Amino acid sequence: MKLTLERSALLTGLSHVQSVVERRNTIPILSNVLMGADGGRLTLVATDLDIEVSESVDASVDAPGQVTAPAHTLYDIVRKLPDGAQVQLTINDDDRLDIDAGPAHFTLPLLPSGDFPKMTADGFTHDFTLPASELSRLIDKTRFAISTEETRYYLNGIYLHSKDGLLRAVATDGHRLALAEQTLPAGSDGMPGVIIPRKTIAELRKLIDGTNADVSVAVSESKIRFTTGTVVLTSKLIDGTFPDYERVIPRTNTKELVLDNKVFASAVDRVQTISAEKSRSVKLSLTDSNLALSVNNPESGQAREDLPVNYDDEALEIGFNAKYLLDVAGQIEGQDATFMLESASSPALVTDSDDDQALFVLMPLRV
Amino acid sequence: MKLTLERSALLTGLSHVQSVVERRNTIPILSNVLMGADGGRLTLVATDLDIEVSESVDASVDAPGQVTAPAHTLYDIVRKLPDGAQVQLTINDDDRLDIDAGPAHFTLPLLPSGDFPKMTADGFTHDFTLPASELSRLIDKTRFAISTEETRYYLNGIYLHSKDGLLRAVATDGHRLALAEQTLPAGSDGMPGVIIPRKTIAELRKLIDGTNADVSVAVSESKIRFTTGTVVLTSKLIDGTFPDYERVIPRTNTKELVLDNKVFASAVDRVQTISAEKSRSVKLSLTDSNLALSVNNPESGQAREDLPVNYDDEALEIGFNAKYLLDVAGQIEGQDATFMLESASSPALVTDSDDDQALFVLMPLRV
Repeated sequence: MKLTLERSALLTGLSHVQSVVERRNTIPILSNVLMGADGGRLTLVATDLDIEVSESVDASVDAPGQVTAPAHTLYDIVRKLPDGAQVQLTINDDDRLDIDAGPAHFTLPLLPSGDFPKMTADGFTHDFTLPASELSRLIDKTRFAISTEETRYYLNGIYLHSKDGLLRAVATDGHRLALAEQTLPAGSDGMPGVIIPRKTIAELRKLIDGTNADVSVAVSESKIRFTTGTVVLTSKLIDGTFPDYERVIPRTNTKELVLDNKVFASAVDRVQTISAEKSRSVKLSLTDSNLALSVNNPESGQAREDLPVNYDDEALEIGFNAKYLLDVAGQIEGQDATFMLESASSPALVTDSDDDQALFVLMPLRV
Repeated sequence: MKLTLERSALLTGLSHVQSVVERRNTIPILSNVLMGADGGRLTLVATDLDIEVSESVDASVDAPGQVTAPAHTLYDIVRKLPDGAQVQLTINDDDRLDIDAGPAHFTLPLLPSGDFPKMTADGFTHDFTLPASELSRLIDKTRFAISTEETRYYLNGIYLHSKDGLLRAVATDGHRLALAEQTLPAGSDGMPGVIIPRKTIAELRKLIDGTNADVSVAVSESKIRFTTGTVVLTSKLIDGTFPDYERVIPRTNTKELVLDNKVFASAVDRVQTISAEKSRSVKLSLTDSNLALSVNNPESGQAREDLPVNYDDEALEIGFNAKYLLDVAGQIEGQDATFMLESASSPALVTDSDDDQALFVLMPLRV
């Protein structure tokens, strides 16, 4: 293998694939990136056995070939090369990789490309395309609610499915739930509901950050593939059943509280300063047109702040985890957030004045 | 105690004193800030028993008094209050601190001010004043070489002393040494040499960052005090003898290597990608007008980069820790760095083309 390419092209390619590579690997080849040079392209592939990311970039190929080299080391070297450098990659006579860029020369150990695990591409049954910005929205509005409890593995991801003619993303950890939906893209009707793992969500979100290219999505029962430009991310899905979350969305709550989202978030952030590290409990006391936020912590003191709000139902006291309130507030885009409440022990439904295709459910805390 | 003051004044005062307070304290009152209100001023004091920082800010005092309250909690609350808020601090009937700012009310537990440890101010024997920028320069050029080995406690700080009519700062960890000096300020002549502890250096550097106010320094055998504006930092000194560092400065080295500092630093950074985590060893091979930087790591590969340099002495190979080379390069302000070398086993003297009042010594590594 022998090829030359622009440092910036190689850097872009490596930056897209290397982040899936774990820092520590018991299987040495998983630390490596597979490089294949052929027909004017260099193809880079990295995997952690659950996720595979590949990208191909333009290269001037003198001798085609395939090899695997340490992903993070290669990325660090290319990152530190001067902007505009031409990089030559060659397999030398000792079966090592020579990297030459101007006055800099590096030699890296290789592992044979034949040992590199390739993810099988099953028969994907559904294909659809949506803009990166819409996919980012579905992720951002829901990912904060993904469970980190490993025993509830079926909650360790975002549940993407079609529902009532919409494409819907849902995540929940049992304490809160986040749901975002949008028009069903052509081709996604009837797709299997899939649970996309947390790490896949994180890698995907990085890949599509700041772009508004189209993303093609291919789905099977066990895998999902995202393609944008020359980058392809293929991931295993979580093999489990997402719970019947519709049951916990309290759509019949009657007590309506409308508040200025930013003012509310600042006040919650202030009063939580006093809350115990663990529970982060904040009490909301509602009376006519007034919301009092309060925290009473025997160790660190008391906090109370009053906000004018739109509320004219009966007085109600209800507690929430301040962090969960702030997570939701962070995803509200409009001026106002609407809390639909029922009682101190019933979950609250939160909606956004500017986005009727997202909703959040918060379980109350005993206060 | 009852007073009102601007949130910004209270925030500035607290930000200056709170950072000395450790997150965990076995003695509860050390988590607190001492607040004293009297005569139109609020004085804030925090300590970790080795360092004491105090500041006083304007306040409208209705009832004078003194009390201690949790420093970090108070700081977090004030930080989160809206800009421009007026803050009222009151000791209430339950002997707790009420903090009122518009719609926000907080109550914090207190500890009696009588229990707060005050640092005794010994008879300072020497007093001098220098601009904050000059003090920052002495710190920045030397602090990276402070030892972190606790057994060599006398190296855990910067040695400040007068020498040959100059004020000189020196730090060393036995592997490298950094020295910066400047005109001796009036009043510092004959001052005792003092070892200022690492944490004091860090706190002081934060306090004077970005300002160019004058800093008054008062020194005794056991303490040092820095005063700038309304902030006073008093610190214990390290009770030990700084070694006779002059012995290790190789002022008679004869082999002169002059190189472009930025080009050199970039090349060192690139080749060190391959170096072993622990030794970070980089080999410098000097021949006529050429410097080859190389790393040979059986595990991760090889790196080599050639630089044109000014060197016309006999060929020499010498190894250094890449991190130490980069630390020194980071403090060189001029275009060029000059390395005075002698042999593969002798220390190198590094100087700055733009600053003849700073020098660095690097011990070689066997390569």
